[in-house]
Amino acid sequence: MKDLLPNGALDAEALDTLFLEARSQNAWQDKDIPEEILEQLYDLVKMGPTSANCSPARFVFIRSREAKELLAPALSSGNRDKTLSAPVTVIVCQDMAFYDKLGELFPHVDAKPWFTGSEAMISETAFRNSSLQGGYLIMAARALGLDCGPMSGFDAKLVEQTFLAGTSWKVNFMVNLGYGDPSQVFGRLPRLKMEDACKLL
Amino acid sequence: MKDLLPNGALDAEALDTLFLEARSQNAWQDKDIPEEILEQLYDLVKMGPTSANCSPARFVFIRSREAKELLAPALSSGNRDKTLSAPVTVIVCQDMAFYDKLGELFPHVDAKPWFTGSEAMISETAFRNSSLQGGYLIMAARALGLDCGPMSGFDAKLVEQTFLAGTSWKVNFMVNLGYGDPSQVFGRLPRLKMEDACKLL
Repeated sequence: MKDLLPNGALDAEALDTLFLEARSQNAWQDKDIPEEILEQLYDLVKMGPTSANCSPARFVFIRSREAKELLAPALSSGNRDKTLSAPVTVIVCQDMAFYDKLGELFPHVDAKPWFTGSEAMISETAFRNSSLQGGYLIMAARALGLDCGPMSGFDAKLVEQTFLAGTSWKVNFMVNLGYGDPSQVFGRLPRLKMEDACKLL
Repeated sequence: MKDLLPNGALDAEALDTLFLEARSQNAWQDKDIPEEILEQLYDLVKMGPTSANCSPARFVFIRSREAKELLAPALSSGNRDKTLSAPVTVIVCQDMAFYDKLGELFPHVDAKPWFTGSEAMISETAFRNSSLQGGYLIMAARALGLDCGPMSGFDAKLVEQTFLAGTSWKVNFMVNLGYGDPSQVFGRLPRLKMEDACKLL
């Protein structure tokens, strides 16, 4: 197989799959995601770059009916039905003690003192980099042929009480994963023109 | 051309380009990025999902020698040489007045009042979603055959004084773009095992 153009770029079909034709989903086909695909997904996501390889994102994959029922009370009304019917809902988390893993992740420098004692540096680094990794998750899922439905409309405190009590993890946002029902996708919303969002200097 | 597997997934070569073989770069070939490629890049990035389509990321593409010289004093010593030699450095910004564009971006609902008056909601939404869009930028650049070098080691206040004065934009992080010199890439750092970063419920 050969899918790269001579300049190393992906071809048009791949760009459609990742960006141009991919759509946030509101309803799902009745088709499960095998655990093997979730392992492939994590194996892609983990390779995306983070600052000093700090890798603060953590992922809670909600699959069972029992776990979905625990999640339900935390969902906003507009997100409830689609989330309960998605084969997998990922709670994208940030580990506020991510610096404890730097000895393993960034072994050539003692980077932990860059963070300890600086709450602002910890929370900024965890939030920026776990959000970046959330972006990699969305792209990796699409690259594996899955559809996504990212959401930030939920009761974060309740999600943390229910699923993250006793850990150093905090919730960032959520992503439903599965095989979407194209008939339930909303119309495409406008995007900002390049001249309104970019400067070339 | 046909680069999708029967299940809609990208093939192995594309996954290598996006995730598995892609590496953060420390040195660059002497090869420019035409403006047309930057336009293609933005046209991919802008399609990635954000909450309520709020699209808070803004991008300053630093290309000219003059602009690079203005940027130089804000760079940490470890980031200076590679940034000055990169054909393009993107300052990934967040527009703290992103809600002023919601009438254009989310026209079916009056979403601006969700944000106005709530500084915490504004800064959380801008930071999360502009970071997500920064992740899309890295993936889109790789998809177009470019290499990336993301960085957060710089003097953000000085970058804002130099390039963003008089705007509602704040800096989030930076990404060098170009065609990397593979001989200058560092060894791959370890990643967290799935059982240390994920829970399946």
